Amino acid sequence: MNLKRLQQSIEKIATYSDAGVGINRLAYTKAEQDAKRYLIRQFEDEGLTIRVDAVGNVIARREGLRTELPVVAMGSHIDSVYDAGKYDGVIGVMAALEIIRLLNEESIQTLHPIEVIIFSCEESARFSIATVGSKAMAGVLPAIDLHALTDRDGITMAEAFRENQLDLEQVERAVRRPASFKSYVELHIEQGPILEGERLDIGIVSAIAAPTRYRISISGRASHSGTTPMNYRSDALLGAAEIALEIERAAKAEAHKGTVGTVGVLTIQSGSMNTVPGEAYLEIDIRGTDGSSKQMVIERLQAVISRVEQERDLQISCTLLSHEQPVHMHPDIVHDFEETCEENNIRYKVMPSGAGHDAMNMAGLCPTGMLFVPSQDGLSHNPKEYTSIEQIGIGTRLLKDFILKSAIVTTNALQNKCLRSS
Amino acid sequence: MNLKRLQQSIEKIATYSDAGVGINRLAYTKAEQDAKRYLIRQFEDEGLTIRVDAVGNVIARREGLRTELPVVAMGSHIDSVYDAGKYDGVIGVMAALEIIRLLNEESIQTLHPIEVIIFSCEESARFSIATVGSKAMAGVLPAIDLHALTDRDGITMAEAFRENQLDLEQVERAVRRPASFKSYVELHIEQGPILEGERLDIGIVSAIAAPTRYRISISGRASHSGTTPMNYRSDALLGAAEIALEIERAAKAEAHKGTVGTVGVLTIQSGSMNTVPGEAYLEIDIRGTDGSSKQMVIERLQAVISRVEQERDLQISCTLLSHEQPVHMHPDIVHDFEETCEENNIRYKVMPSGAGHDAMNMAGLCPTGMLFVPSQDGLSHNPKEYTSIEQIGIGTRLLKDFILKSAIVTTNALQNKCLRSS
Repeated sequence: MNLKRLQQSIEKIATYSDAGVGINRLAYTKAEQDAKRYLIRQFEDEGLTIRVDAVGNVIARREGLRTELPVVAMGSHIDSVYDAGKYDGVIGVMAALEIIRLLNEESIQTLHPIEVIIFSCEESARFSIATVGSKAMAGVLPAIDLHALTDRDGITMAEAFRENQLDLEQVERAVRRPASFKSYVELHIEQGPILEGERLDIGIVSAIAAPTRYRISISGRASHSGTTPMNYRSDALLGAAEIALEIERAAKAEAHKGTVGTVGVLTIQSGSMNTVPGEAYLEIDIRGTDGSSKQMVIERLQAVISRVEQERDLQISCTLLSHEQPVHMHPDIVHDFEETCEENNIRYKVMPSGAGHDAMNMAGLCPTGMLFVPSQDGLSHNPKEYTSIEQIGIGTRLLKDFILKSAIVTTNALQNKCLRSS
Repeated sequence: MNLKRLQQSIEKIATYSDAGVGINRLAYTKAEQDAKRYLIRQFEDEGLTIRVDAVGNVIARREGLRTELPVVAMGSHIDSVYDAGKYDGVIGVMAALEIIRLLNEESIQTLHPIEVIIFSCEESARFSIATVGSKAMAGVLPAIDLHALTDRDGITMAEAFRENQLDLEQVERAVRRPASFKSYVELHIEQGPILEGERLDIGIVSAIAAPTRYRISISGRASHSGTTPMNYRSDALLGAAEIALEIERAAKAEAHKGTVGTVGVLTIQSGSMNTVPGEAYLEIDIRGTDGSSKQMVIERLQAVISRVEQERDLQISCTLLSHEQPVHMHPDIVHDFEETCEENNIRYKVMPSGAGHDAMNMAGLCPTGMLFVPSQDGLSHNPKEYTSIEQIGIGTRLLKDFILKSAIVTTNALQNKCLRSS
């Protein structure tokens, strides 16, 4: 393991960024394309063959002794949100590059081919749609009209595709068959505070939580704050406040199951200091990997809406925006990671992922696993995002160990050489 | 009492409005000036002498038999907020015009001169400063730099003054001596739901509540809504929600004293559904005419801030924006109105005013009183603002009765005629 080289790789990718605070390397921008081109050269230098698929996923293949065997894959993404940090996504790709370099230095041959995949457009920051690359590969890109999506400058997704020599009409050509993969594993930063808080080095992801999201509109009666007695009011903001606090209480009651609930958006209409708010709007995000635990929070949300509507003389409409099912990582891979941690005295925890990742789509194609390394202060999507190179190194070693086991190393170096020259 | 003529006067003023929903007759606009010019002609037709003072207040004087005696004044304003109704302010001026017409028709002479005052810029909608005309007259226009004030189109108050042939440098010339007034009374819509709710015709204002206002900034920690467990959060929005609900509880506990508390403004920083809000901003308005009752609410606000700051690991800063004292109406005038209501079987209530009015500044100059008529559904600052002409008529009769008593009618018609022709 060459930690210095790994660190340099991460720093190199950070140089590809548009102007702004921290990293700005949004999906399908020139900065992201330049970074991908740089990485393609690195993989070519290591003797891998490169393919760019119909959504721009970069697939770097290290051939196996048995080319017909299903692929052992690893990867992540290098696109970023606005004003991002250096680590989100990037470390998964750089760890994979480091592993390829190590295999070559150690002249290790594997039976199965190995692929490193740099997924396109994992972040929803540009086009309001996340994990586009892995969704396309798994054949689950939603039937929504991708042509309708635009970024904040009004550039359509179709135009962005054309700038990358891609055709939005051809996305289904990126679909791959489940039989083509043996396994997929991804190393990522935790983006939360748990590992640091519990002084652990590794999180082994048990499942990826999918959000259930609601949009809530509250209508009361705008009135004069000076002339309207308290018992004559229909204050939409106070209804919203009760709902927000109940979401917190409900999620805290389910905290042992890892369920979380958040009001991330709250606006009130034409707020002025001498007006009782007549309208309020909320967006609620409930996540967990335990469906019945999530359901408990959803039921308490529905109950508080009914109560508040009646007690406060408000009209409340609640629209379900999404209701996805949690995706479980493959138990054999979770178990394998656990064993390796135990053998190597690595402090770890099996934990859910609250954020979505490309791994959740790849899990529909093949046995999939995911490793977390700690995020300092739990920060992510933030220029202050940080994980030490030693922590990234521990994750990279675990990833390498798994890849070697899954791809099956041929220990006969002589045989390898014969096969290579054949 | 000519209710049809009074109604026509109110409808006529409603024709002076800029484009928009409902009435848009903002302070110092051409629409407001045109309406004032129309009214000046009406008062001139009734034989009154007109003066426009240094802030644009229109003062229409009906001479008394003893011209040296202090003035008995009545009035209100005709400027409006954006998208306003027809009644706020207007009925006080139109009732005064109707009373002048009645005195003339009845050939009533008074010892004291009578003045009708149309105050300028009562509403803060245009320049964020309220009751400019009466503040200037009472000599309490704040020492703030009026030159710094602009409307939402960037027009300065100085420019607006110039368009009205006024000079912002000369506002102190509008100040009048307390000795020049005997009394001031104002008829206004309630702008709240109490009179309608209790099926009353008249509110006799006991005192005008002045707001105590706070600006509250809450800093927590923005974090990922999926990856941050509930017990690792510093959610600024939930802190704000607790404060808003405590303000309501505190004000409800003081509701018997007429105290109210409102969070009219709440914003959170960069709200997105997958972010735990890191920053929240509130504006709080606490009003009442009972100082110690208001203080109870203020103390509970301070207590909840301390508790929430500690329990939720938030930093909360609280800035006092204003802390004004309630203004009491003159007890003799309140008592006089009460007696007249009793004698005439008018259903009334002595009540505080939650909203500010020109009367609160005039109370610094002379004994002042105020009457409310009901607002349908408690609505005001709204195109749906409505008070029936019969209800306005009851208020106008009470106002006339008081003016006659205060200005002292000379019952000798012959003497009146002699004096008139002399």
